[in-house]
Amino acid sequence: MTSVQIARPQIALQAPTAEDAACCTPTGSGPIHSAEQAQKLASLLKALAEPTRLQLLSLVAAHEGGEACVCDLTEPVGLSQPTVSHHLKILVDAGLLTREKRGVWAYYTLVPERVSQIAAALGDFTTPQSS
Amino acid sequence: MTSVQIARPQIALQAPTAEDAACCTPTGSGPIHSAEQAQKLASLLKALAEPTRLQLLSLVAAHEGGEACVCDLTEPVGLSQPTVSHHLKILVDAGLLTREKRGVWAYYTLVPERVSQIAAALGDFTTPQSS
Repeated sequence: MTSVQIARPQIALQAPTAEDAACCTPTGSGPIHSAEQAQKLASLLKALAEPTRLQLLSLVAAHEGGEACVCDLTEPVGLSQPTVSHHLKILVDAGLLTREKRGVWAYYTLVPERVSQIAAALGDFTTPQSS
Repeated sequence: MTSVQIARPQIALQAPTAEDAACCTPTGSGPIHSAEQAQKLASLLKALAEPTRLQLLSLVAAHEGGEACVCDLTEPVGLSQPTVSHHLKILVDAGLLTREKRGVWAYYTLVPERVSQIAAALGDFTTPQSS
């Protein structure tokens, strides 16, 4: 039997770069300087804006050694392994977790820099703008 | 003519309270201590996770006096007033903006404490947990 690989579009959720800030129509003097920047931050926030995903991030961050196997995560969130794996994939695609396959299991680690990046972007809203 | 007031359900997106943290099944020792807490943070993040809403927040924050009229916001985001008002309502319901009607226009102001609260909740993920 021939297996057909269907290429799935990769949604790259990259952090806003200097290029983003430099290009495009500025919409104001606030922390969001371009529509593209708003789009990227919104994509990252969307990956986070789901209760199970927030719980999974929390569990991984709190797990021994800062690393957790999908087998450690299904019971605490009370969901099936395919559902948990689906949520973990969204977090990995958003750069919030890294995934490493070892033996039969995949292990997940938090990317604290990515979370800090989002927190900092939100913090910019509350920082008085220089005129 | 009698005007009929239809009560619209108020979606209260309150900050996690001590009660939330105390109740319910703990899911781990990380920053998210209950399913309810995860639900509330996810609702707030969902209100933010939209490019136009991020741009609107940014525009309001950067506007003279930290306050903007819907009439100041339609042109920069390139959307109709009803669409902009719809997004602003979601931000007001989430407690991210306040709304004050003066004359014919509604004026919006950022609630920096609310944004800081979300940024702090995300920051908790990157803080090493005390054992």
